[in-house]
Amino acid sequence: MNFPAKTKRDFKVVGTRVARPDGVDKVTGRALYGADFSVPGMLVGRILRSPHAHARIRNIDASRAEALAGVKAVVTAADFGVPEDAALRDIQDNCMAREKALYHGHAVAAVAAKDAETAKAALKLIEVDYEVLPHVTDVDAAMAADAPVVQEGRADETVPEGSGPNVTMYTEFGHGDLEAGFAKADLVLERSFKTEATHQGYIEPHACLATLTGGRGELWCTTQGQYLVRELCAGILGMEASQLRVTASEIGGGFGGKTTVFIEPVALALSRKSGRPVKIVMTRSEIFCATGPTISSSMDVKIGITRDGRITAGEATLRYQGGAFPCETVSMGAQAAFAAYDLEAVRTYGWNALTNRPKEAAYRAPGAPVSIYAVESVVDELCQEFGLDPLEIRLRNAARDGTKASYGPTFDQIGLVATLEAAKAHPHYTAPLGENQGRGLSCGFWFNFGGNTCVSLNLNNDGTVGITEGNPDIGGSRASISMMAAEELGIPYDKVRTVITDTNSLGHNDVTDGSRVTFAVGLATIEAARAAIKVMCARVAKIWGIDEEAVVWEDGHAKPSGPNAGDFDPMSIEEIAAIASETGGPIAGHHEVNAEGAGVSFGVHLADVEVDPETGATKVVRYTVFQDAGKAVHPDYVEGQMQGGSVQGIGWALNEEYIYDEDGRLQNAGFLDYRIPVASDLPMIEPVILEIPNPGHPYGVRGVGETSIVPPLAALSNAVSRAAGIRLHELPMSPPKILKAMMSKG
Amino acid sequence: MNFPAKTKRDFKVVGTRVARPDGVDKVTGRALYGADFSVPGMLVGRILRSPHAHARIRNIDASRAEALAGVKAVVTAADFGVPEDAALRDIQDNCMAREKALYHGHAVAAVAAKDAETAKAALKLIEVDYEVLPHVTDVDAAMAADAPVVQEGRADETVPEGSGPNVTMYTEFGHGDLEAGFAKADLVLERSFKTEATHQGYIEPHACLATLTGGRGELWCTTQGQYLVRELCAGILGMEASQLRVTASEIGGGFGGKTTVFIEPVALALSRKSGRPVKIVMTRSEIFCATGPTISSSMDVKIGITRDGRITAGEATLRYQGGAFPCETVSMGAQAAFAAYDLEAVRTYGWNALTNRPKEAAYRAPGAPVSIYAVESVVDELCQEFGLDPLEIRLRNAARDGTKASYGPTFDQIGLVATLEAAKAHPHYTAPLGENQGRGLSCGFWFNFGGNTCVSLNLNNDGTVGITEGNPDIGGSRASISMMAAEELGIPYDKVRTVITDTNSLGHNDVTDGSRVTFAVGLATIEAARAAIKVMCARVAKIWGIDEEAVVWEDGHAKPSGPNAGDFDPMSIEEIAAIASETGGPIAGHHEVNAEGAGVSFGVHLADVEVDPETGATKVVRYTVFQDAGKAVHPDYVEGQMQGGSVQGIGWALNEEYIYDEDGRLQNAGFLDYRIPVASDLPMIEPVILEIPNPGHPYGVRGVGETSIVPPLAALSNAVSRAAGIRLHELPMSPPKILKAMMSKG
Repeated sequence: MNFPAKTKRDFKVVGTRVARPDGVDKVTGRALYGADFSVPGMLVGRILRSPHAHARIRNIDASRAEALAGVKAVVTAADFGVPEDAALRDIQDNCMAREKALYHGHAVAAVAAKDAETAKAALKLIEVDYEVLPHVTDVDAAMAADAPVVQEGRADETVPEGSGPNVTMYTEFGHGDLEAGFAKADLVLERSFKTEATHQGYIEPHACLATLTGGRGELWCTTQGQYLVRELCAGILGMEASQLRVTASEIGGGFGGKTTVFIEPVALALSRKSGRPVKIVMTRSEIFCATGPTISSSMDVKIGITRDGRITAGEATLRYQGGAFPCETVSMGAQAAFAAYDLEAVRTYGWNALTNRPKEAAYRAPGAPVSIYAVESVVDELCQEFGLDPLEIRLRNAARDGTKASYGPTFDQIGLVATLEAAKAHPHYTAPLGENQGRGLSCGFWFNFGGNTCVSLNLNNDGTVGITEGNPDIGGSRASISMMAAEELGIPYDKVRTVITDTNSLGHNDVTDGSRVTFAVGLATIEAARAAIKVMCARVAKIWGIDEEAVVWEDGHAKPSGPNAGDFDPMSIEEIAAIASETGGPIAGHHEVNAEGAGVSFGVHLADVEVDPETGATKVVRYTVFQDAGKAVHPDYVEGQMQGGSVQGIGWALNEEYIYDEDGRLQNAGFLDYRIPVASDLPMIEPVILEIPNPGHPYGVRGVGETSIVPPLAALSNAVSRAAGIRLHELPMSPPKILKAMMSKG
Repeated sequence: MNFPAKTKRDFKVVGTRVARPDGVDKVTGRALYGADFSVPGMLVGRILRSPHAHARIRNIDASRAEALAGVKAVVTAADFGVPEDAALRDIQDNCMAREKALYHGHAVAAVAAKDAETAKAALKLIEVDYEVLPHVTDVDAAMAADAPVVQEGRADETVPEGSGPNVTMYTEFGHGDLEAGFAKADLVLERSFKTEATHQGYIEPHACLATLTGGRGELWCTTQGQYLVRELCAGILGMEASQLRVTASEIGGGFGGKTTVFIEPVALALSRKSGRPVKIVMTRSEIFCATGPTISSSMDVKIGITRDGRITAGEATLRYQGGAFPCETVSMGAQAAFAAYDLEAVRTYGWNALTNRPKEAAYRAPGAPVSIYAVESVVDELCQEFGLDPLEIRLRNAARDGTKASYGPTFDQIGLVATLEAAKAHPHYTAPLGENQGRGLSCGFWFNFGGNTCVSLNLNNDGTVGITEGNPDIGGSRASISMMAAEELGIPYDKVRTVITDTNSLGHNDVTDGSRVTFAVGLATIEAARAAIKVMCARVAKIWGIDEEAVVWEDGHAKPSGPNAGDFDPMSIEEIAAIASETGGPIAGHHEVNAEGAGVSFGVHLADVEVDPETGATKVVRYTVFQDAGKAVHPDYVEGQMQGGSVQGIGWALNEEYIYDEDGRLQNAGFLDYRIPVASDLPMIEPVILEIPNPGHPYGVRGVGETSIVPPLAALSNAVSRAAGIRLHELPMSPPKILKAMMSKG
């Protein structure tokens, strides 16, 4: 069986804009999200949270709560074991504080009661004896030698001696002779930056319904990865994985923030103790205080450039805090910082420090937006210094096929230059600007992941096709997976339906992250389709009495070929399905793989802003995104990713931030005070898709979900600097900060 | 890879009595049955049913119901299309009457409303204009040339000319020279029998929750076959199969009665029309009136025997009615009637007639209990005539390996003789009897099915194993499937969990019927385990750098063998699982098959009864079941099947019956008036398992679920005849009938 050569085919389904399979359910309110399932006898779970940023828990007296009529269970850390694995222990301790409450909002106890009122009343009856401790929330303060100690002894073997007590890791990437590089430069600029933590801002709250009785569990929850939820919860509850069946609900946004657990182990523990199903739904305030926002950072970047625009060396020191538990996001930030450049000498250093903040979770391209923001800001400032065109300078220094990336590997077939060329040729780049307006540019990058993936493809008796995959659909994967199967099978898209199944109905799948799904699940789907085609051709060969190799698959039909060509009428997939029972039974194709070869993704953003000199408010007036999608399976969704990531990046750049008071309490735990961009804040985000095939995927697909959040931070900072004549080195660039900078400049 | 020889192995897991996986959930009320799911915005569906046994529907005016506040949809037959396929059209017309109401309780309209009260009120506002027609409910009356015509033109091509208007099919089986056979006999007895319809009596009502919006459907329901439900509902609603995802709930009894649809298409149609999820739960009265009881029958049996006990010929004419739609159950009755005998001359004839009764559904060994009841009664009467031992006579004439069965095939390896020998050797057979007591014996038989089956077996990262199958667990299959997988993999039972998945998460599986699941799903599971073992050995071979063929699988470990024996430490399944990601990705085994070779099953029952001469009431005082299980995977469940089927047969024999009044209305549509045996009615049913391996299954498994309902009818009739000195030729042998017979004998 020969399948068409990689990436060299005329696509019939892939690349079209078919109707989204979940659209009607979502707009009519029929889609079932995390909070939408109920079962008889269900209890309401509620969580008691620390009012302190840092406090020793001397005692918890839950006796009055337990005595309240209608309360069926109270759990604290005492109801959990102590996992041997440190990472798992951290996740558990983040779900339920053990000896200390480590941040404002840290869970300390939970109740399950017959209704919400009773649960709420019970929380008030739990008496927690706290010893309040000194706290730290700022990353630079946390790095200090005399900082309050968040957790003892959490430094790993990478941390140099003499580092502050909150430092947990140190990492370093790069190559070449930095000193020689800087010596070649006509100008070396060194700048320091700070960024605040932001939240993914998914509209759907974390919610779950858990049953754990007789040692067997069922969990319905909103998540980006039911298998990871199973692994973490089974580990925390001391169960074998197979005994916990986790079903992912429809998901109302995740963006990385739903790649771990917060309430799920608590609900399971409450169910185990009460013997009843328990539902927990987080409030928005709980989400802000006690789920996983991004890191905040402090960074130093040093870049040297020749007068004619050749970057001679780059160096970056990144200090990230990811909350009260060790966090390695800085490693990705350090790897990504200079990825867009072909440099002879480059070095990045990354530090992580503990603070009294919630444990960071992933957020679209975790770690990359801030480090690239710092690098792209300095590159822009260098261009300004020498009056160089920022796009030409990026083209001049761009990473290309064969470039040794700053983080180690050599790039294969990448799209940065094509993306820059597209930006250069686009009318936006040369459009005139108005008063108080400026144009900013930034490159962006994301690695993209592959990973462990299982797909089963089943032929139904009526010739329609069912596909089972295990990754929650956060960006249109049900459509794109069906499309790739239809393409490979040579049948119409609407003959295929893809469902996301539970943990016990398909083999392990890594979490939906790293922009891996369209790539890895798509690859597995194509392979599963090919396996099914082989079975179908073998069945037909048997019917015809000819050799299997003499049957080819074309346009949804098995056809005789070679010496047998024309001997028999082609058989359609419907005909083959109708008699599957008589030819041996159901027909399927399966594929299990740890997918490798996810191609990296580059993007270039152009942003025009207008800064109000009276208020310091920044308005985005035009925004264009250029991004390499490898192959855009469903362009609508790809454009949606490019637009959605841009909007989140715009929020990060201009307004979003975690604001702590001097007691370490979060002051803006709600959408009224934590301001995400809404439609009226934004212009149309114009997406321009480039297609430079990824050689690692049969159709050339690359991940597209994350790169788009990276460039807006620097693009907007660069635009503001040109519009307002001032350059901030911190985010968000909120109106008071801009106004202050403008006023001090005069 | 060599796997142990079929049926010649020392079982470690198979044959033990492990804890049932669903036990705790069921006894604590946590198991989720058909009525136990709810979603936001759900409506309550209710069905309006015909008060007449036979009536033309001249008009349905639903306008007042539709105008009632809170009513969201009303559907009638006009809301459905007319399927081309006759069988599908019958199923649809049974769910919703089209031109005529064909039986008392036939659905004529349905409403979906915001709550049950509103739905009930709406039903009363629907005005149906009926033209009442003459009706027929008795099978003999229905066979007559001048009977009321239930449906025109439903006779198929098998029906001889001149048959009555309600006859729909005729069939014939057998071989040999009947005339010569009867001529050789010393005595030929001919007897006529009648049996009444019985209901499966599952405790859980039919219930479903349906959503059908935007052309895509989700259905949660109690069923024995989610794939069949999908096929039928998709056909009726005019959808492609892949667009309807059906999930089977936990099932509270089915026994064959949940192998079709009654309310599911109605709920989907109501959802499609209202745009809301719709839940329908049947009342007990609706279940009796309008689901699928068994056939009722009228039969003539003629058997010849020599003085020394050789049966020379057998002949049976069966007339079954299966309600208002064509029904072919009589074919199975005709095939099964003489299956226990090795006969030179045998012939069975089967007729089906339409009546104004609900469409029959399967009930444990459908068709066989009544035909075998008639045959086993005549054999017993012949033994009485000549004073022969009924067990010896059956042994003398028993079907054996190599016997040409009365219905065509030649038996392979069967257990009838062993089962008879076990009964003969059992103390029950020779135990003394008290006053008014008698002992009856009967053989029983069922074909057992195989069929289309898919199984996926997935290795979790912690080395536990998940199995996905598509057949609702009606008799312990989750346990037995896990056991067979554990056996094959060489790991403990509690490392394996089997789940029943939805239609879109696994390929097609035939319905859970014909005692097919432990056989066919077990076979597919063993093959899937072997496929996974091959993958594991290949991975380990790669790690060790040796040939795949040099790796063997033993006791849950991959071991080097042959020239490589001892070169490496064995790797356990846990170790292999832990590094699956690094060796290529997730590990799985899959198998799709149309399973053949389900071995037939025989049983012998001994029943002691005491008949009260004052009341005619029959008490079962001792009951022993001997049955060939092939290999009893989980003896508890096998014994449960033997006991449960016996109890249902005892109910059929003694008390259960459909009672119609002269207007054709069912008079006993509730458990108060339709009397199933309860625990206090019964002695301990002693099960004796025989194990004569089925050569068609790797472990020798045969189906065990159905045979046990077959012998009680004749065993009890034969026992009553010996206890009371009278022989009834009809069922049930309720006290008034026995008393009347005893009194007329004097």
